[in-house]
Amino acid sequence: MAASRGNYSDQEKALEYVKSLIRPFPDFPQPGILFRDICPVLKDCNALRTVTDLITEHLQAKFLDIDAIVGLDARGFLFGPIVAMNLDKAFIPVRKTGKLPGPTIKVSSTKEYGKDVLEMQADAIEKGQKVIILDDLLATGGTLQAACQLVREAGGEVLECVLLVELEDLKGKDKVPAPCHSLVKF
Amino acid sequence: MAASRGNYSDQEKALEYVKSLIRPFPDFPQPGILFRDICPVLKDCNALRTVTDLITEHLQAKFLDIDAIVGLDARGFLFGPIVAMNLDKAFIPVRKTGKLPGPTIKVSSTKEYGKDVLEMQADAIEKGQKVIILDDLLATGGTLQAACQLVREAGGEVLECVLLVELEDLKGKDKVPAPCHSLVKF
Repeated sequence: MAASRGNYSDQEKALEYVKSLIRPFPDFPQPGILFRDICPVLKDCNALRTVTDLITEHLQAKFLDIDAIVGLDARGFLFGPIVAMNLDKAFIPVRKTGKLPGPTIKVSSTKEYGKDVLEMQADAIEKGQKVIILDDLLATGGTLQAACQLVREAGGEVLECVLLVELEDLKGKDKVPAPCHSLVKF
Repeated sequence: MAASRGNYSDQEKALEYVKSLIRPFPDFPQPGILFRDICPVLKDCNALRTVTDLITEHLQAKFLDIDAIVGLDARGFLFGPIVAMNLDKAFIPVRKTGKLPGPTIKVSSTKEYGKDVLEMQADAIEKGQKVIILDDLLATGGTLQAACQLVREAGGEVLECVLLVELEDLKGKDKVPAPCHSLVKF
């Protein structure tokens, strides 16, 4: 379970540190895209703990009743299971198409660069369950839009989408049909 | 940090429970392949905690000196960061090609079905660092073989590969140039 992280300025300092670790790579994976690399956050276990503790504390403070954490393939898998374990809730993976066995639900998404088909097991969410969608980064919002649609088609309710990083200029929030909460903004 | 899990028979019972959750899907993703679906382990936070605690305890008991946990895209990402945090070590992602920015090292792999190119950031591992490679499943061993090669090309030493599931009939261990430890065998 997440330890309490003290007052607001401690949180701000911790997030400034996390933000300082995220490295910009211009023109990756395509010309004109400024890629934000979160690998140094994973390499620093204190930063990874800060990020997952802050997400846990935010969700505990805001929502009384969460049934599951839905994490998006692949970088949502890095944080989602930790947060799910902290909250004692189910973790449900949304994957790129063709990876999940059994009956599934599929939705197409448009990303900042390229397209994807997202897929979830049809029995992953029970009707009426309240879920949090977790991913590393909000860019144009296409992936989260598709993930929200998947959860709704499965009968679930998206309480909030939680991101480590938000690229504010791209206005992805406008596209996502659920509230978004991000720890670090660029 | 992982809590102590008591005596051997408690561990066996916990692993029997985890094993009972893993669902077989014949002919997925291709005819002739029996797919082992670990999603129910993720959905049950006690099972996820059991798995990551047992891996943590195994590594603490066996190795005095680990520098990093290397997790493989995408299902190694589900367990790797939890184990890395439990051990207070770095987590390093190995990804499918084209996903990581900056200078990288690449190795081709042959999987149970299909081919992959695996990639790691060139600065992820320092020369002489001792790493554990973590993935969900050992089938023919092609992916782990490539991951071991990546770590060695980066100057690291693979202490062990740790898997949630091992498909013993496929004799993947023979192909992996490092010791393998698996929690659940089929």
